[in-house]
Amino acid sequence: MSTHLRPEEIEAESFRLIEAEVGPHSWSFEEWQVVRRAIHTSADFEYSRNLFFSAAAVVRGVAALRRGLGIVTDTNMALAGINRVRRERFGNRISCFVADAQVARAAQAEGVTRSILAMRKGAADPANGIFVIGNAPTSLFELLRLVREENFKPALVVGLPVGFVGAAESKEALLALEDDYPGIPFITNRGRKGGSNVAAAVVNALLIMAEGG
Amino acid sequence: MSTHLRPEEIEAESFRLIEAEVGPHSWSFEEWQVVRRAIHTSADFEYSRNLFFSAAAVVRGVAALRRGLGIVTDTNMALAGINRVRRERFGNRISCFVADAQVARAAQAEGVTRSILAMRKGAADPANGIFVIGNAPTSLFELLRLVREENFKPALVVGLPVGFVGAAESKEALLALEDDYPGIPFITNRGRKGGSNVAAAVVNALLIMAEGG
Repeated sequence: MSTHLRPEEIEAESFRLIEAEVGPHSWSFEEWQVVRRAIHTSADFEYSRNLFFSAAAVVRGVAALRRGLGIVTDTNMALAGINRVRRERFGNRISCFVADAQVARAAQAEGVTRSILAMRKGAADPANGIFVIGNAPTSLFELLRLVREENFKPALVVGLPVGFVGAAESKEALLALEDDYPGIPFITNRGRKGGSNVAAAVVNALLIMAEGG
Repeated sequence: MSTHLRPEEIEAESFRLIEAEVGPHSWSFEEWQVVRRAIHTSADFEYSRNLFFSAAAVVRGVAALRRGLGIVTDTNMALAGINRVRRERFGNRISCFVADAQVARAAQAEGVTRSILAMRKGAADPANGIFVIGNAPTSLFELLRLVREENFKPALVVGLPVGFVGAAESKEALLALEDDYPGIPFITNRGRKGGSNVAAAVVNALLIMAEGG
């Protein structure tokens, strides 16, 4: 059956099924574009309830993509999952430094994890503005440290680390930015779920909106 | 807190938490190495119940990896998620042809999806034996067609497409191989869930066992 539908038709039908199953909800139109794509990529309806957007995060995230800011991810899986054609339309470079040779040497020398140093390297380049974390709580904690201690101002944080040790806590720490740093838009969720696939899906939803005009 | 633990310690602690939460189960020792890693990568305990292994699939999959057979994935995300260092230890090449220029041209010319042609290209190379599908039901349907119609014999199929149109059906079709083609080991799950991240986690669990002796 599915082999007779074109990919766009499969996606449209998937979104119809997701909307029917979620039913009435209180997401804004823009937020819903992101939420439904997170469900689409995971078949996990918990994302219809556990996601969180800081004020106007979608609109501000879309604007950041349109400005061509660089994207930094914490995993090569998230990097691979962000649509290249869409991203290149706005000139957004993408980088993941976790397997970077310089980062690996410094991690060895300093006894600091590569996840931490990879974020630091990404944040050091002013051309980067969009930080996408789908795996490592330590990456997100480091990004938050840069914000609080070193006056770092990302244009968007997609913070969706997954797991059993530190993931939920790192996202609670991100949620605390809302009051302290209202200038930093972010998209995250509560709890242990998340992942590089969901983080990439969030960025892809924003890229599609960015194209939309 | 998590920042004070080394990555291996975080993983061990995660597995302890997963084991405690799953409680008694009927997976074999080898299957459990795979199941717990699928949960670890998704924080989704449905994988403690929905995964399925054909007879001795883990042992046979590990043997296929040790023989250095090539791995073919349906997405670059699954490709990126499979541990490179571990894979290279056994000489397993990895390929994903979905963005391949030749596949794209042929898809255009023949009016067939790239997912289908990408699988066909992977299967055409006898050095490839391990097929990892985390996204496209059409890729899995095509692989099953090659098995049934063209006498293709993969050494392992990891079939975990995700989604709302065709994913569950494609996995039911894979499950039907069990009786008809007992010579083809496979790992899959029932239902709509799955994904490139979970498919990669399954292969990583096998690679770790392959190293283990």
